[in-house]
Amino acid sequence: MIESQRIYTAALVVIGDEILSGRTQDKNIAQIAGWLGVQGIRLREVRVVADDAGAIGAAVNVLRAAHDYLFTTGGIGPTHDDITVDAIAAALGVGVEVHPEARAILEGYYESRGGLTEMRLRMARVPAGAELIPNRYTGAPGIRWGNIFIMAGVPQITAGMLDALTGTLEGGAVMLSETIGCWIQESEVAELLRQTERAHEGCQIGSYPFWREGKSGANFVIRATDPDRLAACASDLSGALDALDRPAVAGGI
Amino acid sequence: MIESQRIYTAALVVIGDEILSGRTQDKNIAQIAGWLGVQGIRLREVRVVADDAGAIGAAVNVLRAAHDYLFTTGGIGPTHDDITVDAIAAALGVGVEVHPEARAILEGYYESRGGLTEMRLRMARVPAGAELIPNRYTGAPGIRWGNIFIMAGVPQITAGMLDALTGTLEGGAVMLSETIGCWIQESEVAELLRQTERAHEGCQIGSYPFWREGKSGANFVIRATDPDRLAACASDLSGALDALDRPAVAGGI
Repeated sequence: MIESQRIYTAALVVIGDEILSGRTQDKNIAQIAGWLGVQGIRLREVRVVADDAGAIGAAVNVLRAAHDYLFTTGGIGPTHDDITVDAIAAALGVGVEVHPEARAILEGYYESRGGLTEMRLRMARVPAGAELIPNRYTGAPGIRWGNIFIMAGVPQITAGMLDALTGTLEGGAVMLSETIGCWIQESEVAELLRQTERAHEGCQIGSYPFWREGKSGANFVIRATDPDRLAACASDLSGALDALDRPAVAGGI
Repeated sequence: MIESQRIYTAALVVIGDEILSGRTQDKNIAQIAGWLGVQGIRLREVRVVADDAGAIGAAVNVLRAAHDYLFTTGGIGPTHDDITVDAIAAALGVGVEVHPEARAILEGYYESRGGLTEMRLRMARVPAGAELIPNRYTGAPGIRWGNIFIMAGVPQITAGMLDALTGTLEGGAVMLSETIGCWIQESEVAELLRQTERAHEGCQIGSYPFWREGKSGANFVIRATDPDRLAACASDLSGALDALDRPAVAGGI
């Protein structure tokens, strides 16, 4: 039965004063969420915390216990404000060590770039017992420790690390979705949405209103792991909207 | 003394499966963070949680106790997946009631739009004892209950609610910032950044690397509440980068 399948979940800790100050628009939540979805893993919670060892450690310890996988982004560079490795090692109760393979990677990367200085060597430090996640762009690897995946904060570099992990994590059934857009106030179809969801077991309908140039519209996102159930639910909802003379736009608006 | 001033903090709970699925790129974190900064309030933590009453309630109760202010976004519309009001009321241990002023606002708004149906009236429901936050766009108000501010999820509507709150919350000294960009690997100046921060009391320097078209660069963000200290630190760092023949770009890259 679909309903009895094991569901794999993940959490994400975004480490960064720059997100909390509003200066930088986070891109990693959406990127990691989408990537996890393809792996059959559901992102269940995100916490954005300050560059503060206590805050990082507390979030990591709660979330690594509550989920199959925990990802972190940010704070693994060479500068004084990069404290993620030390904070996580402290939270895990393990020491910090220079990973020999990470050191070798950095020596190669910096050979033609001024050499591996003491500050650059900081990027080879890992919580004791960790493995590495390749970084195809700038050498400095990500870190895997148990079910924790410590990733870069720069979105392109994070993307490369996710690529390196693709297909390596155990997941469950992939959550499929179809989006139907409509120029309608969601309040006009609230009861229809509720009834349609109830009539289609194993399907969830989310209603996401928007308001553009003075006009109200909404995208209705149907989610299910079973493609036939998904298609049947989407077909029913589209037909009902068309019958109201408010045409359904496949793929959303 | 600057250091002894009271610091006002806030947290944000983003409620939304659509963010956790990766389908929608969140815009409210950056928007609310920036707005809070201008009010002299520092955003210290964000949690993105699913459309799940238990998850919403747990996050709200932890964060409202830990901070001066707690904001939430999302889940206050008229559809079956809008459960924020009920979840927060349950977490607070209070009932849910129709707010008479909210009902009057919605009656006016929907008078020419098909009338106030039962589903639309859901948007007048508040945790008992709440006040309203005006929504200039679509009628349905936000909600204030104690130090909790329950806001819309649609970013333009959230923006209108923030406008309505501007200047009404007690805050402290505004955190000022200057950004200096440089086409340099941050690892080349990691020690310089650390020393510069240490030499300027009351200033913090964040280093935010980027990687564009195969080139490494970084933005250095200096933060302080005192404008003179901020200017002195920025001047020292700019001068040091120029002296390395790596010109500092005021305002960032």
